[in-house]
Amino acid sequence: MNEIPALEILKQALRRLPGVGPKSAQRMAFHLLERDRDGARALAQALSNAVERVIHCGRCRNFSEAELCGICSSTRRDASLLCVVESPADLVSLDQSGVYNGMYFVLMGRLSPLDGIGPEELGLHRLETLLDEGQIKEVVLATNLTMEGEATAHYVSEMVRRRNIRATRIAYGVPVGGELEYTDRSTLARALSGRREA
Amino acid sequence: MNEIPALEILKQALRRLPGVGPKSAQRMAFHLLERDRDGARALAQALSNAVERVIHCGRCRNFSEAELCGICSSTRRDASLLCVVESPADLVSLDQSGVYNGMYFVLMGRLSPLDGIGPEELGLHRLETLLDEGQIKEVVLATNLTMEGEATAHYVSEMVRRRNIRATRIAYGVPVGGELEYTDRSTLARALSGRREA
Repeated sequence: MNEIPALEILKQALRRLPGVGPKSAQRMAFHLLERDRDGARALAQALSNAVERVIHCGRCRNFSEAELCGICSSTRRDASLLCVVESPADLVSLDQSGVYNGMYFVLMGRLSPLDGIGPEELGLHRLETLLDEGQIKEVVLATNLTMEGEATAHYVSEMVRRRNIRATRIAYGVPVGGELEYTDRSTLARALSGRREA
Repeated sequence: MNEIPALEILKQALRRLPGVGPKSAQRMAFHLLERDRDGARALAQALSNAVERVIHCGRCRNFSEAELCGICSSTRRDASLLCVVESPADLVSLDQSGVYNGMYFVLMGRLSPLDGIGPEELGLHRLETLLDEGQIKEVVLATNLTMEGEATAHYVSEMVRRRNIRATRIAYGVPVGGELEYTDRSTLARALSGRREA
């Protein structure tokens, strides 16, 4: 199929999407060209538009089209609570749970010295500026339960406590609807060590 | 996240790709914006480029950037053999099996009266013109082993035999219910070399 460079280039470009291998890329390319050229045009437009317009909120670092994102500029949210997450996707998931109404700070990564990701890359100086404003009473650490996520939570919690602000970590344990029999050891260990009064 | 329309539009546009649900679309959008804006730009460009340049070969109906595709304009192929397939993906899979060196005719679908897809939509008048040129000695029917694919093969084989041209069907070897696009090379090679009178 080397005689169709535009198609080959499209397949290669589709492979830059996460989770898309050569077969999926071909299927997507053929689907768009055979049955949804309008969809291809719409996607091209949406990509250009998003790359051009989506910036990071100057306060929480989440994606935004304005200097200040919708959450940071909201007056209906509890500005004394700040939840620290690794990524915009984590923010979306937490916010959809419906029980949290505070602010966020998005690290856009996690501490990973081997990959050259230190406090600077995670914008922790900005987080310090926020903490120094004096409005925040509690920082909820919601990084992932990986080695790096834990190290990041530890680092941030030290930073928070030095300012006499409360630092909390979201609970880790058996997921709702999960069965003990099929829950892995480390989750059960967490669930046990994190037990509370019934 | 309603405050970021460019991001929402991108997620919706990504969902037009086959096999991409809301979670995958979000993951793709975040990945591109967080870590691969160049990839997003490249994909936008590749999509526009492909939609603009990729047309159908005037002879075999496969994707092409020229009036005549690379296969149809090749002098190294056996022009007395014509393989009829449903889609460009099927053509790619068959051609990669390495045992077929003839020409192709791509139906871009299969007979499906309920969906309004009849002989006209599959360009069968063009296939008749090719057959009437007198160069083709054998037509290999390589439609999928589905009800509609079989009906299509039957219809085309009648058309071929009326012209006293040999009509063959690729061998059973391709698993029933399976699709050519996802069949491994050696199975496809078996299917091709074991073809029988239709």
